[in-house]
Amino acid sequence: MAADPRFHATAGPLPLAQLAQAAGIEVPEGLGDRRFSGVATLHAAGPDDISFLDARRWLPGLRETRAGAVVLAAENAHAVPQGTIALISPAPVLAFARMATLLHPPEAANGARHPTAVVGEGAQIGEGCEIGPYAVIEAGAVLGARCIVGPHAHIGRNCVFGAECRIFSHVTVTHCIAGDRVTLNPGCRIGSEGFGFATTSRGEHVTVPQLGRVILGDGVEVGANACIDRGSGNDTVVGPGTRLDNLAMLGHNVQTGRGCIIVAQAGIAGSTTLGNYVVMAAQAGMSGHLKIGDGARIGAQAGVMADVPPGMDVLGSPAIPVREAMRSFAAIRKLGQSKAANRAAEEKTSD
Amino acid sequence: MAADPRFHATAGPLPLAQLAQAAGIEVPEGLGDRRFSGVATLHAAGPDDISFLDARRWLPGLRETRAGAVVLAAENAHAVPQGTIALISPAPVLAFARMATLLHPPEAANGARHPTAVVGEGAQIGEGCEIGPYAVIEAGAVLGARCIVGPHAHIGRNCVFGAECRIFSHVTVTHCIAGDRVTLNPGCRIGSEGFGFATTSRGEHVTVPQLGRVILGDGVEVGANACIDRGSGNDTVVGPGTRLDNLAMLGHNVQTGRGCIIVAQAGIAGSTTLGNYVVMAAQAGMSGHLKIGDGARIGAQAGVMADVPPGMDVLGSPAIPVREAMRSFAAIRKLGQSKAANRAAEEKTSD
Amino acid sequence: MAADPRFHATAGPLPLAQLAQAAGIEVPEGLGDRRFSGVATLHAAGPDDISFLDARRWLPGLRETRAGAVVLAAENAHAVPQGTIALISPAPVLAFARMATLLHPPEAANGARHPTAVVGEGAQIGEGCEIGPYAVIEAGAVLGARCIVGPHAHIGRNCVFGAECRIFSHVTVTHCIAGDRVTLNPGCRIGSEGFGFATTSRGEHVTVPQLGRVILGDGVEVGANACIDRGSGNDTVVGPGTRLDNLAMLGHNVQTGRGCIIVAQAGIAGSTTLGNYVVMAAQAGMSGHLKIGDGARIGAQAGVMADVPPGMDVLGSPAIPVREAMRSFAAIRKLGQSKAANRAAEEKTSD
Repeated sequence: MAADPRFHATAGPLPLAQLAQAAGIEVPEGLGDRRFSGVATLHAAGPDDISFLDARRWLPGLRETRAGAVVLAAENAHAVPQGTIALISPAPVLAFARMATLLHPPEAANGARHPTAVVGEGAQIGEGCEIGPYAVIEAGAVLGARCIVGPHAHIGRNCVFGAECRIFSHVTVTHCIAGDRVTLNPGCRIGSEGFGFATTSRGEHVTVPQLGRVILGDGVEVGANACIDRGSGNDTVVGPGTRLDNLAMLGHNVQTGRGCIIVAQAGIAGSTTLGNYVVMAAQAGMSGHLKIGDGARIGAQAGVMADVPPGMDVLGSPAIPVREAMRSFAAIRKLGQSKAANRAAEEKTSD
Repeated sequence: MAADPRFHATAGPLPLAQLAQAAGIEVPEGLGDRRFSGVATLHAAGPDDISFLDARRWLPGLRETRAGAVVLAAENAHAVPQGTIALISPAPVLAFARMATLLHPPEAANGARHPTAVVGEGAQIGEGCEIGPYAVIEAGAVLGARCIVGPHAHIGRNCVFGAECRIFSHVTVTHCIAGDRVTLNPGCRIGSEGFGFATTSRGEHVTVPQLGRVILGDGVEVGANACIDRGSGNDTVVGPGTRLDNLAMLGHNVQTGRGCIIVAQAGIAGSTTLGNYVVMAAQAGMSGHLKIGDGARIGAQAGVMADVPPGMDVLGSPAIPVREAMRSFAAIRKLGQSKAANRAAEEKTSD
Repeated sequence: MAADPRFHATAGPLPLAQLAQAAGIEVPEGLGDRRFSGVATLHAAGPDDISFLDARRWLPGLRETRAGAVVLAAENAHAVPQGTIALISPAPVLAFARMATLLHPPEAANGARHPTAVVGEGAQIGEGCEIGPYAVIEAGAVLGARCIVGPHAHIGRNCVFGAECRIFSHVTVTHCIAGDRVTLNPGCRIGSEGFGFATTSRGEHVTVPQLGRVILGDGVEVGANACIDRGSGNDTVVGPGTRLDNLAMLGHNVQTGRGCIIVAQAGIAGSTTLGNYVVMAAQAGMSGHLKIGDGARIGAQAGVMADVPPGMDVLGSPAIPVREAMRSFAAIRKLGQSKAANRAAEEKTSD
């Protein structure tokens, strides 16, 4: 089955020539007029659907697909079954994404403001914006053209958004300046008070006023229920094109470069700085005040407690270079299988 | 003290015969008419309350309880004080749960729709539903009979729920088909856009349209602020009776079997498949595209990076069989206590 | 730049004498009338701003600051540049917090109830409270004087709050009794149903009714999207002055003492008890039914599976005393660098 039409709009059928052009793919001769109505997985696709192959392990599925066309790397084209068009791309997922976006375009702002939306004094709502029921946009806030503000979203006083932002339901945004094409998924919290306090000699925690902002670059995406605290004095800055997954957390004054990827449930403590294109896998953590170099990659559940140079991959808690970590894991496992370890475990048990 | 009547309804007092029957317990002769008004812990219970004992470590509390009756296993009955009725069950917590549910039934839908609820065109609201203030139910959505929709809940276009679902305050649901008796705790996010993108050679992340749905089986429960992304092409599927705790996370295309347990802050990456009755303890994580067999158990904070066969218990990050992991932990600790380790630590410090 | 006036109120300029008195600092002679309008970091501060130095590593920044005054420890005063006033304090961050709070006071309740707020029968709203748009306060709830209730906040039936609480947007509170000066950041969930169930022999999970409450002491602060479940029979209790960071999680019946610190994404399983002033770093976890002594400190990502005595620092998963953990980490790393480990890793790879 292709995308359920109850939930996903479709713009098809579209001719292969148009789709292929968007994807930078050469169309096999004479097939440019063939029309496609949707996309689907290899298993679910029918003759009107385009599918894709992104890894050799799915070759068995490719051999049995009924898809009308499949995007894939040249080296896998041999396995495309008769009756299925092979669309060759050096970057099949990217090409597929371009075609899928044409066939199933994301919802655009409908230009309507629901009568229950509360819009404060002096707020500027750009041309063509869609404002959902019970949205609250406080005084002085600015939205660029064609933004979507979902039901119950709350945009705080004087916040600024560029054009074509999507602020989904139940989002809270305060103390924030955002660029164009920013996506805030449901329930994320932008600009909350950071975790800053000083403790008296009697053990009382006294809040240090959190006087900074959150700056979101063009194209930033923030996952559902993720949290980005505002800066304490400096700003918290998320670089253009950076994406946070669900339930991720950025502490006050964190700065990321361009195009970073922060996967689900990962967290970064206050004032740590990431270069460009850093990847942080799920459930990883970073201490505060660190410097992570361009292109560094942090493994899942890693605990980063020291600076990471550009391009280095780290893993483990505390995190160490990934090659060392893999060796340590193997050594530990070996240790756990040895007689000595068994003895130690038994002694432990009999304590 | 028993349950605070400001927060918990009571249906009592009820006769012991009725309570015991619901719990599959035999009532000691002549006591069936004795009436109970509530449940409480061993320490807090009075003569009108029923309590329970689920572990031998609470035997001291049992000896001093003032509870009118205590549900417990036969082997612990010897410690029940005079004046307290021993209710013998091979599954005391389960029996207690049945009786507590009779005495303190969960709130049922009151059949009222708050005038501020926004219900879209063509939405079907089943008989007896309760719709809270500022709830938003979009066009085409379907709710079965006797559902509760809390304040500010947002049910997206064309979503379908069966009967007797509870959708608590601030929930967001989109792209979702759900069965009967589904519980969505406050602030959980169902159906958000998954974390799917392809990256250009210039480092730009391009969204792969997420064109699947979320399918929730009968009796599924989702914790507060937990997140379940919709599928990217296939669906994300949560099997009947599966329960997710607070702040848990399921990525796109994850599929769970029947009766799985995903404890707080655990996360599963895209396209991983769980069999039936898998237990995943708190803060554990799983990589994508794995297969976890029926009845496997994943320890707290474990990092599962490979398939797990049915019935296997794993622990550690990366996760290994629990017995090996326990031996490794003991060996590591021993290592940390050895002279060599001390020397290594000192060298490290003097770097 | 000092605090952005679009987002942060200012009460300045204020004379140094007044600021210093609040901070317990002695003013250098003749400078009491000098007025300051804001606070800023060493780098951003100008002549009208007060800044601070809390660690020797920022000394280079101090030497180049243009701040009008800097709060710092006596031993660092030598590096204060000409034209900048040195304000000496044994606790510079605390002193700075006191002055910053005077110059940039937190927003006070404005006494207005938005016409869209839904307030249930018999609810008592204290003098001077501010109730935001679309807030829902159910029947019988009680708010003390000068509370702020943000947009879309949901306060459940019969909940009680003391004076000067801040309940930010999208918060859900049910089954809760709270003291004075409690802060609930956006999207946190207080009082949800705990994760309590018993499983039948056929694998069906049956809910154990969760009949307790949440008790929040004076001055408790809860982070954005954090979750505190209500007790199952006993109450969940958060001691006075305890602070939870974003996305933290307390299971049912957890009890904390006074002044505990629970950092982001940390989680505590059911019925564990913390003494006073326990610190739990980010992403750490605790099993259920443990006792953690006064002043214990739990490292980031630690997995606490046993009681921790008062004053002990632990680290690692499973957590062990920090000194042993550091040695184990060093030993493991050494192991990973040894030839034997390399061999083990290679064998592993060639499986």
